[in-house]
Order: sequence, then structure tokens, then C-alpha cells
Amino acid sequence: MAAKRPSQKKASAKPEKKNAKRAAGRRATTSRRKTAGPAKARGPKRIWFFGGGAAEGRADMKEALGGKGANLAEMARLGLPVPPGFTIGTAVCAEYWSGGGSLPKGLWPQICANVRRMEKTLGGAFGGGESPILVSVRSGAAVSMPGMMETVLNVGLNDVTREALAKKSGNRRMALDSQRRLIQMFARVVLDLDIREYEYALESLKHRKGVWEDTELTEADLEELVETYREIFESRAGHEFPEDPWEQLRMAVEAVFRSWNCDRAIRYRDLNRISGLVGTAVNVQAMVFGNMGKTSATGVCFTRDPSTGRNVFYGEFLLNAQGEDVVAGIRTPRPIAQMKRVLPKPYADLVRAKDLLEGHYGDVQDMEFTVQEGQLFMLQTRTGKRTAGAAIRIAVEMVHEGRLKKRDALLRVEPHTLDQLLHPTFEKKAAKNILARGLPASPGAASGRAVFSADEAEDWVARGESVILCRDETSPEDIGGMYAANGILTSRGGMTSHAAVVARGMGKCCVAGCSGTEIDVNARRMRAGNEEIVEGDWISLDGSTGDVMLGRVPTERPRLSKHFNELMGWADEARRLKVRANAETPHDAKVARGFGAEGIGLCRTEHMFFDEERIAIVREMILADTADARETALAKLLPVQQQDFEAIFRAMKGLPVTVRLLDPPLHEFVPLTAESQATTAAAIGISEEAVKRRVEALREMNPMMGHRGCRLGISYPEIYDMQVRAIARAAARCAKRKLDVRPEIMIPLVGHVNELALLEARARRIVREELQAADVKLKVLIGTMIEIPRAALTADEIATKAEFFSFGTNDLTQLTFGFSRDDTNAFLPDYLAQKILPEDPFQSLDQSGVGQLVEIAIERGRSVRKGLKIGICGEHGGDPASVDFCHRVGMDYVSCSPFRVPIARLAAAHAAILARRRR
Amino acid sequence: MAAKRPSQKKASAKPEKKNAKRAAGRRATTSRRKTAGPAKARGPKRIWFFGGGAAEGRADMKEALGGKGANLAEMARLGLPVPPGFTIGTAVCAEYWSGGGSLPKGLWPQICANVRRMEKTLGGAFGGGESPILVSVRSGAAVSMPGMMETVLNVGLNDVTREALAKKSGNRRMALDSQRRLIQMFARVVLDLDIREYEYALESLKHRKGVWEDTELTEADLEELVETYREIFESRAGHEFPEDPWEQLRMAVEAVFRSWNCDRAIRYRDLNRISGLVGTAVNVQAMVFGNMGKTSATGVCFTRDPSTGRNVFYGEFLLNAQGEDVVAGIRTPRPIAQMKRVLPKPYADLVRAKDLLEGHYGDVQDMEFTVQEGQLFMLQTRTGKRTAGAAIRIAVEMVHEGRLKKRDALLRVEPHTLDQLLHPTFEKKAAKNILARGLPASPGAASGRAVFSADEAEDWVARGESVILCRDETSPEDIGGMYAANGILTSRGGMTSHAAVVARGMGKCCVAGCSGTEIDVNARRMRAGNEEIVEGDWISLDGSTGDVMLGRVPTERPRLSKHFNELMGWADEARRLKVRANAETPHDAKVARGFGAEGIGLCRTEHMFFDEERIAIVREMILADTADARETALAKLLPVQQQDFEAIFRAMKGLPVTVRLLDPPLHEFVPLTAESQATTAAAIGISEEAVKRRVEALREMNPMMGHRGCRLGISYPEIYDMQVRAIARAAARCAKRKLDVRPEIMIPLVGHVNELALLEARARRIVREELQAADVKLKVLIGTMIEIPRAALTADEIATKAEFFSFGTNDLTQLTFGFSRDDTNAFLPDYLAQKILPEDPFQSLDQSGVGQLVEIAIERGRSVRKGLKIGICGEHGGDPASVDFCHRVGMDYVSCSPFRVPIARLAAAHAAILARRRR
Repeated sequence: MAAKRPSQKKASAKPEKKNAKRAAGRRATTSRRKTAGPAKARGPKRIWFFGGGAAEGRADMKEALGGKGANLAEMARLGLPVPPGFTIGTAVCAEYWSGGGSLPKGLWPQICANVRRMEKTLGGAFGGGESPILVSVRSGAAVSMPGMMETVLNVGLNDVTREALAKKSGNRRMALDSQRRLIQMFARVVLDLDIREYEYALESLKHRKGVWEDTELTEADLEELVETYREIFESRAGHEFPEDPWEQLRMAVEAVFRSWNCDRAIRYRDLNRISGLVGTAVNVQAMVFGNMGKTSATGVCFTRDPSTGRNVFYGEFLLNAQGEDVVAGIRTPRPIAQMKRVLPKPYADLVRAKDLLEGHYGDVQDMEFTVQEGQLFMLQTRTGKRTAGAAIRIAVEMVHEGRLKKRDALLRVEPHTLDQLLHPTFEKKAAKNILARGLPASPGAASGRAVFSADEAEDWVARGESVILCRDETSPEDIGGMYAANGILTSRGGMTSHAAVVARGMGKCCVAGCSGTEIDVNARRMRAGNEEIVEGDWISLDGSTGDVMLGRVPTERPRLSKHFNELMGWADEARRLKVRANAETPHDAKVARGFGAEGIGLCRTEHMFFDEERIAIVREMILADTADARETALAKLLPVQQQDFEAIFRAMKGLPVTVRLLDPPLHEFVPLTAESQATTAAAIGISEEAVKRRVEALREMNPMMGHRGCRLGISYPEIYDMQVRAIARAAARCAKRKLDVRPEIMIPLVGHVNELALLEARARRIVREELQAADVKLKVLIGTMIEIPRAALTADEIATKAEFFSFGTNDLTQLTFGFSRDDTNAFLPDYLAQKILPEDPFQSLDQSGVGQLVEIAIERGRSVRKGLKIGICGEHGGDPASVDFCHRVGMDYVSCSPFRVPIARLAAAHAAILARRRR
Repeated sequence: MAAKRPSQKKASAKPEKKNAKRAAGRRATTSRRKTAGPAKARGPKRIWFFGGGAAEGRADMKEALGGKGANLAEMARLGLPVPPGFTIGTAVCAEYWSGGGSLPKGLWPQICANVRRMEKTLGGAFGGGESPILVSVRSGAAVSMPGMMETVLNVGLNDVTREALAKKSGNRRMALDSQRRLIQMFARVVLDLDIREYEYALESLKHRKGVWEDTELTEADLEELVETYREIFESRAGHEFPEDPWEQLRMAVEAVFRSWNCDRAIRYRDLNRISGLVGTAVNVQAMVFGNMGKTSATGVCFTRDPSTGRNVFYGEFLLNAQGEDVVAGIRTPRPIAQMKRVLPKPYADLVRAKDLLEGHYGDVQDMEFTVQEGQLFMLQTRTGKRTAGAAIRIAVEMVHEGRLKKRDALLRVEPHTLDQLLHPTFEKKAAKNILARGLPASPGAASGRAVFSADEAEDWVARGESVILCRDETSPEDIGGMYAANGILTSRGGMTSHAAVVARGMGKCCVAGCSGTEIDVNARRMRAGNEEIVEGDWISLDGSTGDVMLGRVPTERPRLSKHFNELMGWADEARRLKVRANAETPHDAKVARGFGAEGIGLCRTEHMFFDEERIAIVREMILADTADARETALAKLLPVQQQDFEAIFRAMKGLPVTVRLLDPPLHEFVPLTAESQATTAAAIGISEEAVKRRVEALREMNPMMGHRGCRLGISYPEIYDMQVRAIARAAARCAKRKLDVRPEIMIPLVGHVNELALLEARARRIVREELQAADVKLKVLIGTMIEIPRAALTADEIATKAEFFSFGTNDLTQLTFGFSRDDTNAFLPDYLAQKILPEDPFQSLDQSGVGQLVEIAIERGRSVRKGLKIGICGEHGGDPASVDFCHRVGMDYVSCSPFRVPIARLAAAHAAILARRRR
């Protein structure tokens, strides 16, 4: 048969008719020994064997063997009970694709040789004999991709081996059940067929037999079901189900290779920014059965609680089940602790194994195991995914336990994951209409409109809505919708179900296995408690308690754990970059300080203008016809602004506060509706017509590049004069009261040194006047934002007039790319989807383009002013990759929104540690 | 007296009372000899003497002596009859200002010593004696600033010297007239007083005496007038008119220094982009009198006709007049040729002098002379300003005459002045309602609304109107209005009047001395022929014929002279840069080719979209809901675009044609009014609502940085596909017919190499398909515009996918500065006025900022692709300074609007010649 010929050129996924004649195939227990070629091929090693307390691979060979394969090998080396098997390396997947999608030459004999080793180790035969060996075939890349794994279990089963298995195990029911599972999995994974018909056949059989559970079906029922499955398969696949075990194995291996480049996998890698991998490995391993009766089980467990980080054994198991049942969330499993009572010996073995593994790997492990008739088998171990809170607690406790150095502990926590901890939770006192309670699968507080399919979730979000994705259970097809949603609710599945694992990975709120809800996906509604929720209704999820609530529940600021504070302390010791916050109000300044901000990097004065009382004065100023009238309005604003600054200086005493002078175009402040224009006109005492005319005159084609920033300061010097005076007076008053104030005046949107020269001299004079008038000595820095490409290019000129630079990377990115941030929605999503841009440059600084201007500006600026203080105040200041860049190019500080300050602190620590290691 | 004390610290412009006592002053003929200190001060030379056939200065000392002083010295060296005198150097003006506006220490004795030399040369005495010497005191900077010159004549006259002069000359009337002129000029120039009262006094005296002309006044009348003038002076100045000649001299010298920094002079230098000068020199020269009767005269002349360039002696003179009378345009002078008959001997001397001077300087001279009682005196010579047409003819003819090398001839013509020749003239056949005819003072064809003051001119132009400035005569105060106007009309003054000289310098159309018009400036109207023109009425001026016409007369393309063509031929030999044109239609392509374009550097395909028939299809395409519907519309556009390209390729056969794919945002094409939306909806067969919704969806906040350029090509690949197909098909059809076609496809707005990689591959494939289908071999270049800062910074990546770069410096300037060109009106005028920017960066490339990106891009682009073709297609391609930059940074070509092609050719020649000389 073709499958057995090592020299076969094209291993088609759909075997030709002549190779699949039923009469021949059904009874075929052909041996590959007769035809297999030499087992050893020349060239690099392709297959690594493990089993019998030894292994060819190791844990540090993830690149070559994939994470699963490397860890199976390591567990075998450690002497843990691992069913024997072998791993076909990731490079072979690359060979498969570079060869146009066919099994690389010489591979098949190598596979056959390794199956033979398995047979020797176990004492049985694959595809025949009295003690038939079945195998699982699974994918496993170098980077964990939960839910993206392709698995075919029970490979090697046909009518002959089934009966042998039945005889040997004394459990014919199990053998039949395994066979029907093989057919269904094979249809889905190998031939990519729709499996709803199989499920329908199962349900209709149960209906016909009047039973509820699969387990209630008899052997005869299952025999009938296997036959039905085979018929469905043939009708859909266009050929018979392959009875030849070798043919099954070959097709399953190829299917895994193919799965690497399916749309779903590509999408997943995109979403998770996984790149640089060559392919997936294929793990072929002897089957063990958790569904052999009451002394059999299967389960998933973590060495510590991945949700909270507590050092307790954590996991779930199902008695008499195969592994897929746990992960798929079809049956709700039992907590691992209960296994101690039911299966004490295997439980004790498992506890020993998990202690061994965590100690060996030095990190939390996520393990899969099966108990076959009282004997424990370890099927997988890998680094356990965890919430940010858990990651912190684990890292800190491991330092205390002496298992980790502080620096390594810092690197164990990804800065961006802190976001989960820093964002609001539901208000404790808020009225909550709790509809149901599920499992707290991934912490967080999320509100959104209920939607019932992944596509709908994406559509609603594209329309600017927030959504909660509600599903019976999720599957890998739902990834896009899960990504788009604020939160995920499932009515079935446990803490390790697909929804829970993926949501935790995404740092997204998830309530899983909420059996109090009945979700009708087709009708787009769900019943929860006494309520019916239809598509578009607002619901809220608490991922830390499992609560599902009606409506939008108000949120409050989070409280941070002692572990968090301890870790952040270590981060502060490790980093060189200072971290400031962007804040305008004393309240925000205090919050920022609470999060560890070491100053304010950007205080946008215009945010103070929008207060209802003030906006009237601001409008009066803008609508003034003459400089005199403008001065009158400004005189009213001066004391108000002064008060604002005083309050902020007080809140930030001892720390620097960078105040940016007016930046946005004036039309952002004017009344736009006829009604508000009338009100304004009456208030100022000019005609409505005049207001309208002035508003019209202020309109711009491209306001982003229009009359704003220092251009306003030059056209209307009295505005900047007022602001500078307010800052200087506020600072002088504070200084008078012995408060340590460190004001920094920042002039925005400078593109030419002459702009800065003019405004700097004016500001300097006013500051001098005010300080002299108040008779205080005080250092007031005057600097500029670097946000115009020309400013970066001529930074040597500009630095002659600036005591500090602050990169406004939002505008710098806009201008360097020629992207209007307000308008990128029309094309940026396409750009990211098509990988024209690797990332959204407004999220993470474009180091190769915009970054060049930053480097040029720093180098030229410092060439003329050695101690030039340099920071960043764009949103990139809170993005870890950008913070790393800021460290590398030698900035003094980053400034970001208050809630991102801890992220920046940790990212700055990472940057410093990694830079030292690179050296 | 203070004025005579060399050690005096502060030489106030207003002498203190005690120094101006009338009794002492009136009779004062004090000698400076008694009190003058040592004549020679240490330090650098400050004063250069000339006269008596010798001189200390030379023509090449313009920087130190100013143009006037250097040329007076040179004329004296050449033995021409120059009244003796001396020049106080420009550096002394700088000393004056750096010393806070006071006469530098030690200067006064040096002045006195030089006056003594003058006295020796002439045999007389300044301020006394029987043969009193009077002097003129005039400014003169290194760069000619017509009309900006401050002049005080007859310095040294008081009642005593007046009578001595009267006696010596036998012409007491002249002596009295000179005295009243001194008082008036002194009031205006030295004390900056209003002189209308003096004019009123003169007019009322004439009225009282019943005479029309000044010359009809008697000696007694003039004696009375001098007394009246003195009274007016005293009442306005607050002190008496200084009778001490030395006091007069000192004050006049200081006034000249002060004039350097008056508003008007600063404004003039700004407008004419004059910078880098240290100050003005002061020329003190013995007076000669053109107003000594019928054998005296004064005049201005050119060695060749400065309007046409014809090699004929050209000029004007006034019998019995002082020099100021010619320039001020108060009396209309007579053509120089008539002098031959009236004053044959001085005329012959003048002709010899002009031949000597033109030969000596090797360029056309503009001279001033005075004939005093039959004897010629040369008062000034300088390079003659000329129209562009004249400059060309003179340069070419001087080469033919063997006086110039071709390269120097090229440098004699400023490229930007060609603009005058390349712009339309009035249609020959157009109906013209000629109101009057004046002097053709500066060629050109201009239409505009009549305005009657310089301020109004500026106001109207600021409102977006075109104006013609109509004045009796212009004065330096009108400079701003003249600059703003399209053309200038004066009712008085000759070919060398202020209006004429300034207009020619500006390349602005001017009709001068149009006595057929009566202009009432106060009533804002004029009478011309039988028509009354009020402010705002349209009139047209023909500066080549002197015609003044009612309404807007249609214009036509200019015909270029043989001299022009000859010069351009030399330019083509000298330059290295190629010159292409920006053109979209076969008609424009032909015009460009006629002007010498060597290809099309920018063919904007979207301009073809606006044709009425096509816009419907374009809208159908844009409003399409699906890619399919869009394809249907595009299929209709394909043959239309193909025809366009064929026509352009035919027009430019043998030359490259760069076609830019669709660039502007789609909303530029959609119907905006409800009515046009309805029409479009009906035409396409969709609802008005749908049209409106789509139009709304296309609206952008900052369209300049929005969904345009290659971003459209990525979102709607079918649009670019259609355009590329049309280009390739058109080229293939032409090639089939043995036409040499050189298509270049340009992808706009690229910021990241991935954008270009995607679109280039797609375009390459389509080109290949089309060429294969047509079975022709043809090179089709594919390249990109560099107009996004990021593209310049990553040009090494981009060049891997681009066969050529074309700098789109309009957008590159917008983004590098963050200036929206549509919105700069709000601040750019302020920026230029306040010198924050030296020039409008959209007019002349910002070499220090934007230029850096250009240099970076060229260097990086060529680092990965050696033969990378590089050009520029922004409007800077027609700006001479920018062309020079393009040459220096090694571009291959510049591309500009068809009418600027000759400018670019000449500028490219200048760039090449100057670069060689710098080497």
C-alpha cells in the first residue's frame, strides 16, 4: 500500500480510490516491516524518541521539538511515568511546506523505526497483535498556542485492533467508544469536515434509545454508531474511512503539518504577535485511557493557583473520561483536591510529580495527566499561564522561597499585564442585579452589550460598541470575537476550558461554566435568572467573583496587593529611567503619585479650560476682536489658572511639574451650535452674527497641522503671557510658603528655533518679573516638545534655547507617517491585517522610522547642551516596548497616564536588566 | 559749539537749545579749524576721499563704501568729471548703531579733515569765504535700494554763504531757491518732520502772487519763502534751523545713519530679501547745480534701453533743474537724445562717459549727471536695473560683441525674472476699451480692481482680490502696496520715476506718467478718457505699450525672442540637471515640450477624472458598495484613461513620462450638494440616502493625512490595477506603432517599504500581463514619491522596491513642518513678517530642515541602488534657489509647471556654473 512505501513522492491527504477499497482495507492489519526502508536517513536529526525513563530530547530544545515535545522528553528523563512516543521536529514542518505540502523524503521510514522502538518499550504492536498499541498524534509549536492544537486520538484503531483492545482491556464498550471518537476526530482534523452530522447521529441515537448520557449507550448501540459514523465519513469525504493503521498515522501526521498554516492558526499568531517560528512539531505517543472505568481519570492541574498565585495545588479532573473532555468543557470537572479521596495512590504520585516539576523548572507548571486503571501517566507539562496578579504573587513568593533572584522575578511579570490590576473594579457599594454566578475564570470587571457569536462581536465593536461575548462554550473559531469583546461569558466548561485559558492569556475578563444561564445562540438571546437578555442588552461580568449582572455596573479604582508593592520596589531599584505621569488635575496628580509617579511630564493647560465657568471666559477671549478685548478676558483667566497650578504644585511638591502652554486650535473651544452661539453672544455682548463669523473663520482644513501650539503663542502672545504669568505666580506663592516647587514650562509644536527663541525670551522675562515681584529665588526650566519632524532634524539649533526636550510622539508619529490619527480607521486595520505595518504605530513607537528622528534629536540636542533633560510624554510612554527604546536611546524619563505608571516602572526595570544582560 | 567738539559723546539729533540760539547761529560762519582735533584716528580706515582725477576707493569696494561711493571713486579714477567728496564707510554705520546711535568717537575730526581736502581740490571754503562750497549728503548701501536713499542737498547754506554763492554765481535767485530746498529737505530727512506745510506755503505764495510755476517767483518772493520755511521749521522742530554749516553737516550725516534702520528701509530689505549688510555708507560730495539757468541741466541715463535691452543711449534730462526733480517725477523730463541739440558739448562728453563706463564695467550702467553752466559732472553710476527681456537681449548681444563669456552672460539673467516673459500677454484680437496711454514703464499684462492707496491695495489683496494701484506718483511709502498689486499706474513721472524703477525691479507691470488720467486719491476715483473709474472697478494695464484699458482684457501666451532662445540654448549646454514638466493633458505636454521640457515628471491621473462625463463614472466607482460594483465602474474608466495616456505618450514621444497613480482622498470626487447627490443617485441607481451616507463616511478630520495616495491603492487595489493596466496598454499600443514610449509608474504617499512592495508587485504583474498580451518588449519603470518623512528616513528600504524617487516637496514640507498649506494663512504671514521663517517654505525649499530629509533619502536610496533616478516634482522644482539645492544634492532632474520650465533650465545652468566656480 502506498502509505507504506517510503519512496512515495506525493502523500495526498485524500487517498486514491484504489488504496481505499473497503474489502481490503477493513480487514487490513498489514505490517510495515516488509516494506519499510532503512530507518536512518542522512541529514539532520528529524525525530526524537522518549519513553522508558529516557529521552533523546531535552526541555531546552523547544525550538526544535516544540514546547510539548521538549517537555515530554524532559519528563521522561526525570523518570516520570510518560507513555513512550516520539517527536517529529519543527524543522520537518518547514520541510513539509517548502516541499509544497508533501511528506519530506525519507521521513516515513524514520517514523516507522520510531514506532518500532515504541512497540519494544511497551511490548505490543501498532496496528495489530494481541496487545495492540494505539497512538495520539498532536501538534506542538515552540510557543504555546492554547486551543490551536490539533489532536487525533486512538490512531491505529480499526475493527481488528478494536477487538484485540476489547479483549485485552476487558472493556469492549470503551474500545467501541474510542473507535467512534477516532472517526469523528479524523474527519475534523485530517479532512477538515463538518462534524455536526456526527453529533446529530449521536444525539438522535440517544433519543431513539431514550437515554440522556453517552455512558448509558450499550455496546450494541456503539457498534451501530461506529457503522453510522463510517457511513457519514464516506459520504462526506468521498472515500472510505482508512482502516489501515499506518495510513491513519501518515494522514494524521500530515494533517498536523497542514494545520500550521490554516487561517485560524495564522490569525492566532497575528493576534498574539507570534512570529519567527518555523513550524509545529508532531508528537506521536502511545495512548493511555482515562475512560477505562472508575479507577481511570483524566485531568489538568497547576502547581499553584494561576488565577490568584496562591501556593496551593490547583486543577480539575474527570473520572472515566478522555483528556479532550476536560479541555473542551463538555462535562464540568471536579476540583483536583477531591481526587485524593477517590484515587489516593495516583493522587499522591501526581503531587510528587508536580513538586518535582515545579522545582525542576523553577516556575509554575500546567500539567495534563491520565490515570489508567489506577496508574498515573503524565501527558504534558508546560509553564503555566497566569493572571497578572498571580504572576506577581508567584514571582515574589518564589524570591522569598529562595527559588528566584529578584531580577529574574521582575522578568517573570510582563509589564503590559499589569493593566489588568490597574483598571477599575466594580464599585463595592453599587447596586448589582446579579443574574447568575459562574466560575471566576479570568479576573476583571467588564460591561458591554450581549452578543451571541464571534462575528457579531467583531461587527458591534467595529461600530464602536462594547460587547460581552456570550457562548455555550467557546472554540478556536471564536478567537476574533473574544479578542474584540470586553468580556466572555460561557454557560459550560471549567476553569481550564478554552474560554478560560484564552481569556486569561488575553488578560480579558471571563466568567465560565455559568450553568445558571441558558444561551440560545441562534435566537440571539439568553435566559439568566428571571431575566431574558436579548442581543444588545447591557450586562456586566465580574471575572474575580463569577457574577453576571444586568446593566452597566459602576466601577472603582483597584487596590494593589502587598506583593505588587514589593515587586514594584524591586523594579524601582533596577531601573534607570524616571517615570512621570500625564495629569491635569490635583486629583489625577495624587493618583499618579500614589502609583509611583516621580513628577508630571505633561500637564495640558487646555484641559483646565473646559470647566463650565471657565469656558465662557475662554470663549470671550477667543471671540475678542482686538488684543485689548482679549487682554480683558485673559485677566479674568489669570487667577483661575494660577489657582490650578498652585493646587498641582502642592500635590506634586518636591517633584517636577511640566506645564504645556496652550496647544489645541482655538476652534476646539468655540460654541458650534446655533443655540450655544446665541448664549455666548449674549454673554460677551457681541452679535450672534459676529460669533458665527469668527467660528467660521477658525475652521480649518487640517486642524492637526493648523493654527495651534506655539503658532497661537506667536499670533496671540498675550495668551501665553497670561499662562506663563499664572505658572510663575503660582510657583512663587508656593515657594513663599517653603514648598519645594519645580515648575517646567513647555512650549509645544516648535518646528523652528526662531519660534522658540521668541517665546522663550518672552516667557523668561515674565518669569523674572514675577519672581522679582514676589522676591523669591526659584529655578523655572523652559523647554519644548519635540513633535514636529523639523524640530528633531534641527534639534541642535533648538537645544540652544531649550532646557529640556519632551518627545510628543503622538504628533511626531502622525507627521512622520503622514497619518491623521482621527482618520486612520479607514486603512490602519487593513495595514495591520495585511502586515504592512507590524504594529499600530500609535500603540507602540515605530522604532525604525519615528525612532530615527528621536535618536537624531537626542544626539543633536545633547551635542550643544550636555545636560539636556529628555523625556517622552506621548502615549508611548506607557508601552513596554517603547519604554525599552527610551531607555536604550538615553532618555531621562518617560511620562504616561497615571494608570500606566506602574507598567512603565516595571518596563523601565526590564529595559535596564535586559540592557545589562545584552552588554 | 557741540558739533565741532571731536570728543563730544552723544550727538543728539535735536540740538539742545543752548546750541541753537538764533542770534549766534544765523551769522555763524565759524571755522572748524580752531577746534578740530587730529584728523587721523587709529583703527581701521573710515573715510575714503575722491576727486581731482584720483580716489582712495575702488569699484570693487562696494561692501565697504556702498555702491554709490565705490562707483564715485571708480569714476574719479577713470578721470571722469566727478565733483570731489568723500565716503564714510558702511562699517561706520554699524559702529553708530552698536554705540547706541551716536557718532563714533574720533569720526568728526576725520570728517573735518576730508572737508579740508575738498576745499583744497576745489579752491573754496565750506561754510564761508567768497567761494563757498556746498555739499550733498547721501546714503548708499552695498546693494542698490532705489527710492530708499536719503539725500540732503545744499548743506552748508546759511544767510552768509547764500549771499556769497549769489555773488559768485551771479544768480541770487538760484541761491535762495537752494536755501529753501535745504530747509525743506533737512526738515524731512534729518528731523523726520511732515513737509506738507512747506508745500502749502509754496502753493499759497504762488496763489498770492498769481503765478503757476515755481520759476515765476521773484527773488523777493523766494526771500520771503525762506523766512516762512525757517518759521515753520522752528515751530515744528522746537528749535531754530541750524545756521552753522558744520552743525548742518553733522546732523545730516547722523540722519543718514539713522535712516538705515527706519521702518521703511527694514520693510524694503525684507521685501527684496536683502540681508547680511552692515549698514549704509554716507557720501559727502561738493554740490554742482543743474539749476543755474539754460545751460544747466540734470538727468538720468542708461547705456542701453533697460526696458527692451536695445543698444541705444537711453535717458531723460531736465533743463535748469536739480537732480531730485527728475527722480521724483514732479516735472516730466525730455528724452536724452534731445540734449544733443540743446547742450551739444556736454552731450558729447556724456556719450563718451557712458561708452567708457559700459566698457569699463562690462555691463549696462545707470548714470546720473548734472550740467552746470555748460560743464558736465557725473554724479553716479551703477549697474542698470532692467526687465528680464532686456537682461536677456543685453547679455546675448554682449556675448556677440565679445564683451562677455557665455557663462557670465547666463549669470547676468536672474532665472526668476523670466517669469515676466513667460506669462500671458493681452490677446491681440481681444476687444480693448483703451482709456488712456502712458509710458510703458515696466512690461507685462495686468488686470485688477482699481485702488488708490497703498494701504487699500494691501487690504484688498489680503481679501483675495487682484488690484491695480493708481497714484499720481509713487513714493517709498507705497512699497508695500506696489508689491501687493498686480500692476501700477501713475499719472505723473517718467521712465525713471520711482514707480517705474521699483516696478521694473519687482518684475511688475507699470504704466507711468499717464497724463490722460486724473487721479483723485482722496475721493478714490479717477477720470480716464470719458470714463470715471471708482475704487473696485476692473482695469487692465499693458506695461509694454502703456495702454490703460477698462475691464479685464483676455490674455494669450507670450512669444519668445530669438535672444531668449539663444540664451536658453547656452543654459542647456551648461546645466547637468534635466528639466521636466508637471502636466496632465496632451495640450499642456506640448506647451511644456515647447518650453524645453525633457519629459513629464508628474502626470496627475486624478486631474483626468474631473471631466464631466468621467466624473459620473468615478462617482459610481467611489459610491459602489462592493468590490464587484467598483470593478464594473472601473471597467468603464479603463479605456478612457488608456486614451488619455496614449495621447500624452504620443505628445512626449522619446521622453519619459511619470504617471502618478490616484492620490487625493476619494471625497474630493463625490457630490457635496443635495442636488448633485440626487443626480448621482439617479445615475447610479442607488438611493440618495446611500449616497449621502457614503459621502458622510468619507469625510475626514485631516484629509491631508488621511485615506489617500497608496493607502487607497491598498484598500481598493482594483483602482490602481485599472490605472496600471491603462498605462501599460497605452504604452504597448504606442510601442506597437514604433513610438518610443518611456512610461514611469509612480506610487504616491509611501511611508513604509511594505506599502510599496505590495503595490509594486501587483503593478509589475499587470504590466507583464499587458506587455505579453500585446507581445511588445518595453521598459516600464516603477518608482515612488518621497513625500512622507518616514519614507525619507527609510529610503534604503524603500529603494529596494523603487526604480526611481521623485520628491514631493509640497507634502514633505507640510509634514516636516506640520503646516497644513490650506491653513497657513492664519500664521505664516506673521512668521514671515517677524522673520521667524526667512522665507515661505512652500515657495522656496527649506534647505536646513526639509532639505536634510531630501539629502538623507538620496544618500540612503543610492546606497542600495546605485543608479537610482532621482527628481523633484513639487512646486519647488521651479524655484531657482531650490533648483540650486537639487543640483548640489545630486538629483537627476527637476520637474515644474510648464511655464516655469525655462526658469528651471536657467536656474540649473546657474547651479552648475556656480558649483564649478565654488570648487
